Amino acid sequence: MTDHATGHAAELARFSVNQMTVKQLSLPELTDACARLGVPGVGLWREPVQSYGVAEAARLVRDAGLRVTSLCRGGFLTATDPAERRKALDDNRAAVDEAATLGTGTLVLVSGGLPAGSRDLRGARERIADALAELGPYAREHGVRLAIEPLHPMYAADRCVVSTLGQALELAERFPAEQVGVAVDTYHLWWDDRVPELVARAGAATGAEGPVPGGRIAVFQVADWITPLPAGVLLGRGQLGDGAVDLRGFRALVDAAGYAGPVEVELFNEALWARDGAEVLAETAERYVRHVLD
Amino acid sequence: MTDHATGHAAELARFSVNQMTVKQLSLPELTDACARLGVPGVGLWREPVQSYGVAEAARLVRDAGLRVTSLCRGGFLTATDPAERRKALDDNRAAVDEAATLGTGTLVLVSGGLPAGSRDLRGARERIADALAELGPYAREHGVRLAIEPLHPMYAADRCVVSTLGQALELAERFPAEQVGVAVDTYHLWWDDRVPELVARAGAATGAEGPVPGGRIAVFQVADWITPLPAGVLLGRGQLGDGAVDLRGFRALVDAAGYAGPVEVELFNEALWARDGAEVLAETAERYVRHVLD
Repeated sequence: MTDHATGHAAELARFSVNQMTVKQLSLPELTDACARLGVPGVGLWREPVQSYGVAEAARLVRDAGLRVTSLCRGGFLTATDPAERRKALDDNRAAVDEAATLGTGTLVLVSGGLPAGSRDLRGARERIADALAELGPYAREHGVRLAIEPLHPMYAADRCVVSTLGQALELAERFPAEQVGVAVDTYHLWWDDRVPELVARAGAATGAEGPVPGGRIAVFQVADWITPLPAGVLLGRGQLGDGAVDLRGFRALVDAAGYAGPVEVELFNEALWARDGAEVLAETAERYVRHVLD
Repeated sequence: MTDHATGHAAELARFSVNQMTVKQLSLPELTDACARLGVPGVGLWREPVQSYGVAEAARLVRDAGLRVTSLCRGGFLTATDPAERRKALDDNRAAVDEAATLGTGTLVLVSGGLPAGSRDLRGARERIADALAELGPYAREHGVRLAIEPLHPMYAADRCVVSTLGQALELAERFPAEQVGVAVDTYHLWWDDRVPELVARAGAATGAEGPVPGGRIAVFQVADWITPLPAGVLLGRGQLGDGAVDLRGFRALVDAAGYAGPVEVELFNEALWARDGAEVLAETAERYVRHVLD
């Protein structure tokens, strides 16, 4: 372990920076900064990729030698209105196409909250399952896997009715592991004492067509938990090492479950966005080595 | 069911107002308003009771014919520093004494967050168990039961490392049901699909000395979940009916588990505190009849 991770290719071999961590950087600035620091992976978001052009973005990251570790995000599959629901399914197929173009096998799903006026969490979760049945085969045909992301229970009403890894697995396990996996994010799951058992269960899954590396674990994301939470609770994710999460212990759990894929750092934090993006990226890589790696 | 609950004694038979819901009212104003509206129960907090005088407060509520359904709050049992820990245990014994003086059998515990710099959730939960072993018999001798309250996972770092009913039960079940129960609050638990199974398990518990009414369920509290959450996420609890929680369904679950005790409305909401307290109490009683009762 060194104080500065930059340039230490072995230490950063699994490191990936989610685009939202340094959203102040344009895509070319991001790929440049990654190349300079030896960062091998990026997680991308649909909106900035669409603005840049999906094919152009794919070329940019490929030319930079970067691996796209995930695309965020599909989902929002809880609508009851038929027209809204059809629109959501169409949009998710488009997201699958974009993931395939970008060369990533993982489309992260934020499943959606309760429709206005509804109090039926169970019904909303069943509508997600119905949508997965329709989208799973389409994704698989395009070499993409859907990754259900359980979001912290504080988002259950308005953003994602899938709040625990247990709930995510109960949905995913109805489908082949080649079609539907889960996104494991420390920020959302750190408080749950069932995580060791659930991560092991996720990792142990085999596919319908044979073994799948990492089982159901499609991507591992890390962020720290800091307080007080800001209003709206969206933009308060902590830089690695600043908060309450045992990041190294969590990473060891995920590794022990058989996951050997990328470790993607996804921070939504206004203070980090106000700083120089390349500097934040360097800091994040250094924090990763210090707080997540052995 | 009527539009206005006031004066309908049968409808309000189980209704209790937690003092924090109308904290703008002094204790005499609160007991007066309860008497006028036919509210039979109150949940009290230590600080306002201490300011008024514990014995005087006990006399006031007794003379008003009110039942004290719980006292909030003991807890904060996660400190590692020996002096701090001893102080917390002493304070909890004082809280038991106050509960006994007020004539309530239920002391609600907010267990405490992680000590500064710690990331050891499991260790913190074990220190709570150690403290319960010391405090449980003391409480029982004084006719008081400790009620572990699982708080929403968004409070896990800084307020309460017990985040689910499952975690609360795993702690409580190490002790006789006469000594340690749980507080079930819709605001904290509504998102969890394991609640039906866990509430049933809590209700089915028997004591070391025989059956205990409601099993481990010492008190049932209700509040609605509204978004967006305010900064700090403490003061955003919704008036009954304004949010995402299926309050009636939750109450039916708790009843089906064998709980027949008070339903205490506990709202921390700055908008409600800015209004006339007696008016808020009347509205809350009416909302209770409309959204919680059959």
